[in-house]
Amino acid sequence: MGIESYLHEHIPLSAAMGVRVRVATPDRVELWLPMAPNVNHQKTVFGGSAAAAATLAAWTLLQLRLERAKADDAQLVVQRSATEYKKAITGDFEAVCTFDDDAAWASFEQALARRGRARLTMEARLIQEAHEAVTFAGDFVALRNRCVR
Amino acid sequence: MGIESYLHEHIPLSAAMGVRVRVATPDRVELWLPMAPNVNHQKTVFGGSAAAAATLAAWTLLQLRLERAKADDAQLVVQRSATEYKKAITGDFEAVCTFDDDAAWASFEQALARRGRARLTMEARLIQEAHEAVTFAGDFVALRNRCVR
Repeated sequence: MGIESYLHEHIPLSAAMGVRVRVATPDRVELWLPMAPNVNHQKTVFGGSAAAAATLAAWTLLQLRLERAKADDAQLVVQRSATEYKKAITGDFEAVCTFDDDAAWASFEQALARRGRARLTMEARLIQEAHEAVTFAGDFVALRNRCVR
Repeated sequence: MGIESYLHEHIPLSAAMGVRVRVATPDRVELWLPMAPNVNHQKTVFGGSAAAAATLAAWTLLQLRLERAKADDAQLVVQRSATEYKKAITGDFEAVCTFDDDAAWASFEQALARRGRARLTMEARLIQEAHEAVTFAGDFVALRNRCVR
């Protein structure tokens, strides 16, 4: 199953938001979102849609990394996030997450293997026509046991 | 138009999320959300839905306060937010925002009247079966002029 179909089926809000997966690798995830289903009363993108899009981009990248590491039996949850709205988004937009910190990833994998629990901060940003509109940082936790969280 | 219809029409994501408005006063907003449209691949509520629900509750309360103050010609935007996910949500849930800080509100109204711009931090939380699962704090800015933000 493609990643876009997976997201639409398992996280139905992603379908409601019209998310299209443009790039999905363990180093870079780019999602594209249309304005219409994400608009607010001021004809800009609703802050909640923006936060959700950024969360989804970051989660997808981390999930792809877990899959590559054959560690995708782990549960992946967001523990906290901070979103900064710098500019109103007035049209279709992209949610981009990149990650290339090999040392941080090695520590994360090691912690997950040894202790069954590891945490990593992921950053994402929303872009409209090459302008950064929103920045996001989320702390994600991977858990190997079926704990509640 | 009722507040629920207003939200569903002008912020279509609220309709996709199945938001029902239970209480909507300038002192307390309670939204109810079903699990199904907000679920993730782990059968818990998607972090992005949680952030969006909290944002919506806080925004609605502040909008109702602006209306009561006859200041709802102002644009209301979220500037930054922080969300803390304390417990996975495993069923239908509520997003609750309350506000009773009269001094802070008076300063906000005064700033908006004098300078055309005012900022206020709003807190919201998500509750499942009387347990607090998510806490949210958002800085909102009201702007009287039709600036970009």
